[in-house]
Amino acid sequence: MNTVEQMRLFMEPASIAIVGVTREAGKDTWNILGNLLNYGFQGKMYPVNPAAEEILGIKTYPSLKAIPDKPDLVVIATPRLTAVDLVKECVDKGIKAIIVVAQGFADSDGEGKKMQSDLVRIAADGGARVIGPNTFGVSNAFRNLCTAFPPFKLERTPIGLICQTGLFFVGLSRFHYGKICDLGNSCDVDVTDALQYFENDPDIKVINVHSEGIQQGKKFLKVAKQVARKKPVIALKTARSEYAAMAAQSHSGSLTGKDEVYGAMFKQHGIIRVDDIEELEEVSLAFLRLPPMQGQNLAIMSWAGSTGVMAVDACQKYGLKVPKLSSSAQNRIRKLSLPDWAPVSNPLDIFACVGLRGFQPQNLKKDIQTMLETLLAEDGSQGVLVVIPDFLKAFSSELWDLSANVRQAADTFKDKPIAFAIPGAQGELYTKMDKIDKIVTYPSCERAIRALAKLHEYTEFLNRPD
Amino acid sequence: MNTVEQMRLFMEPASIAIVGVTREAGKDTWNILGNLLNYGFQGKMYPVNPAAEEILGIKTYPSLKAIPDKPDLVVIATPRLTAVDLVKECVDKGIKAIIVVAQGFADSDGEGKKMQSDLVRIAADGGARVIGPNTFGVSNAFRNLCTAFPPFKLERTPIGLICQTGLFFVGLSRFHYGKICDLGNSCDVDVTDALQYFENDPDIKVINVHSEGIQQGKKFLKVAKQVARKKPVIALKTARSEYAAMAAQSHSGSLTGKDEVYGAMFKQHGIIRVDDIEELEEVSLAFLRLPPMQGQNLAIMSWAGSTGVMAVDACQKYGLKVPKLSSSAQNRIRKLSLPDWAPVSNPLDIFACVGLRGFQPQNLKKDIQTMLETLLAEDGSQGVLVVIPDFLKAFSSELWDLSANVRQAADTFKDKPIAFAIPGAQGELYTKMDKIDKIVTYPSCERAIRALAKLHEYTEFLNRPD
Repeated sequence: MNTVEQMRLFMEPASIAIVGVTREAGKDTWNILGNLLNYGFQGKMYPVNPAAEEILGIKTYPSLKAIPDKPDLVVIATPRLTAVDLVKECVDKGIKAIIVVAQGFADSDGEGKKMQSDLVRIAADGGARVIGPNTFGVSNAFRNLCTAFPPFKLERTPIGLICQTGLFFVGLSRFHYGKICDLGNSCDVDVTDALQYFENDPDIKVINVHSEGIQQGKKFLKVAKQVARKKPVIALKTARSEYAAMAAQSHSGSLTGKDEVYGAMFKQHGIIRVDDIEELEEVSLAFLRLPPMQGQNLAIMSWAGSTGVMAVDACQKYGLKVPKLSSSAQNRIRKLSLPDWAPVSNPLDIFACVGLRGFQPQNLKKDIQTMLETLLAEDGSQGVLVVIPDFLKAFSSELWDLSANVRQAADTFKDKPIAFAIPGAQGELYTKMDKIDKIVTYPSCERAIRALAKLHEYTEFLNRPD
Repeated sequence: MNTVEQMRLFMEPASIAIVGVTREAGKDTWNILGNLLNYGFQGKMYPVNPAAEEILGIKTYPSLKAIPDKPDLVVIATPRLTAVDLVKECVDKGIKAIIVVAQGFADSDGEGKKMQSDLVRIAADGGARVIGPNTFGVSNAFRNLCTAFPPFKLERTPIGLICQTGLFFVGLSRFHYGKICDLGNSCDVDVTDALQYFENDPDIKVINVHSEGIQQGKKFLKVAKQVARKKPVIALKTARSEYAAMAAQSHSGSLTGKDEVYGAMFKQHGIIRVDDIEELEEVSLAFLRLPPMQGQNLAIMSWAGSTGVMAVDACQKYGLKVPKLSSSAQNRIRKLSLPDWAPVSNPLDIFACVGLRGFQPQNLKKDIQTMLETLLAEDGSQGVLVVIPDFLKAFSSELWDLSANVRQAADTFKDKPIAFAIPGAQGELYTKMDKIDKIVTYPSCERAIRALAKLHEYTEFLNRPD
């Protein structure tokens, strides 16, 4: 069985045995079987509990041995002291995929460390692979599957995650992961195995990695680079400082290395590194929705001069450039309802075209669309940022709902990324713009430009000969 | 008239004349008079429009001269070419406070630059002060006053803002400014004048400054330091790069200086510098709600080990320290419902006390409160961060609503700042925690720690002998 076939037993099992299913059901009972039933999991389920013959209408077995089948996956959801024996039982039964949920292994005391190495050895001898310990296990919304004991929302987002924490099962602020492989202590199945699973997975377009320390670095980098040629791999590598690395070791037993080394190696192998969860989310959205950014030059239009300045500051910070506007673009914009004294440059301050008296509401949206298309048509820029505050409360929706115009511009210029930034209060305009799936809308210039810069970094990697 | 008395004419006028009031009223008409009536402004209003005898039921005058009174403040809301003559009329009438709204002065062409210097000279000769041009003017929720032409929400938040952009009138994501002085091109009234107004303003507890370039730097630094001794001054200085400085000059005519010089001078004079609007907002909330942070040591408790690690990374980034937990604290925490193998350290991973089987829901909230109070009682730490995901969807509210416990802990330890971080999806728990006005809740560890680090920076300034 190759790694991908093996990983499919975890991520797409046709049958699951769950050891340690409680007879209690409902809120706060952490009943994994109950969760699977609620998600609508279509595979076979074999709860194991010596004190019950049936739980939630599903026939229950006193032991793994008693199950008249060889389930693809066994989830061991009992306290740590039982885990080694249960892994042995799995191996005896010929099970090839085991998730060990409990904490208290390499993440704790000497006894825990010993139990972890014991169970790894027993599994390896028996030809089984282990995810965990110290994990919620896996989640696959495309199969209505999640092995975490709290109930979480499943959403078929084409973003897959490999992580070392249950935190991500709760979802991010703008999406839930379509698939999660929570490695926990990563005692056996590691980030490289999981990457290989996602490499050719048609459900997943963007891969996220959260890791505190990566085992078998060389193998990882080789595989990651190969995967990155096919789809973006975005990595949040934490435990950056020595002290954080110690903390990481105490909760997940990970090995960690010098932070700068990670940074340099990631970049060289096409792995996009991000600094925190919000950036992970925002950069992922850019990759999911936007076309590649084929150069570092950004054309900016901004409702206010001040936010144009902030955008230029952010370009400097994140390594994008703000080129001069071509004279043909200047001429085209000059023909719109701008006063003749208004400066026309990059960043383009559009307030003068809408501000003060003499402004023509009926032309507003069309003029903004023309400006946007003019910037998109610029040969010297490879992406466009539009900065606009959420003025829908102050103005009427008919006047400021730019959705149709922006959709039209995005359809015409499919090959250039468009990002919107809505700094300050976010309301109706933000919601409307966020619904346009060909662009990405961010709550600040800085976040938009940070994401575009990563898009550009990845495009450069793809364009680089191997 | 001293600066503060002068500034009160702008910020707390008993009477306002508005030149350029349209007869149209309602949505999108940008009728400043209409806005003032809607806000419930209690002062006298004198609309000026030669084509109307009455607008919105308010007697209207054909010219400034015709007004049978000397208003405290005149708002000139007509196109740029009329401004110089109108300033002259103001001066002739003995007006001392003038807001010039229009764009097209130092922010535009040669003619605009000349008009700006003309009106500055005329005002100075007549003993009048000018805010603008290129401004929404002022906003004072405590007086139901806002001179911006779009209608904005007013909210009596004790945070005052001095800025160079109308953007902030739309509000930030977590509050609206209680008072705003939008300096626009800052041709006369400058950030130093506005700071002096806020210095002893009882309505305002925290001062925000958005500036692209500061005139009369020495005077500013002297005044800012004096003000900073009384209340925090948080500055977003943009136009950091040379190119951004050029862009700033083109839209507001500001002079700008070397960015590093600003950074060093700000720090030395107790001005808290922030990098973007979100940080401005988040740091302001910390200052508004939290007690001083008397040292750089932070005690951290985290629902997951992974977020504890992220918090430690962020402490390293922002200059806070994560000290070891005292043995008395360790002992106190050991007595709670933790398994005996669970590591007890800083950051404190609380998942083991709630996770997996054997967990006692009835003790959960009390145990978390005890842990929080134990960390608050640590002599070696001067603040506490709690990292917790928004699990209220996965668990029942009764189990996870920590509000009462956190309030109690915050009441007992009034002298130490407490911040919450809720990474990932934010829902009911975030909303509940955000309502506790003695703490601040942030959507990530990084943002929480960034704000606490600024709180500590300011506390150090206050503790430093002058």
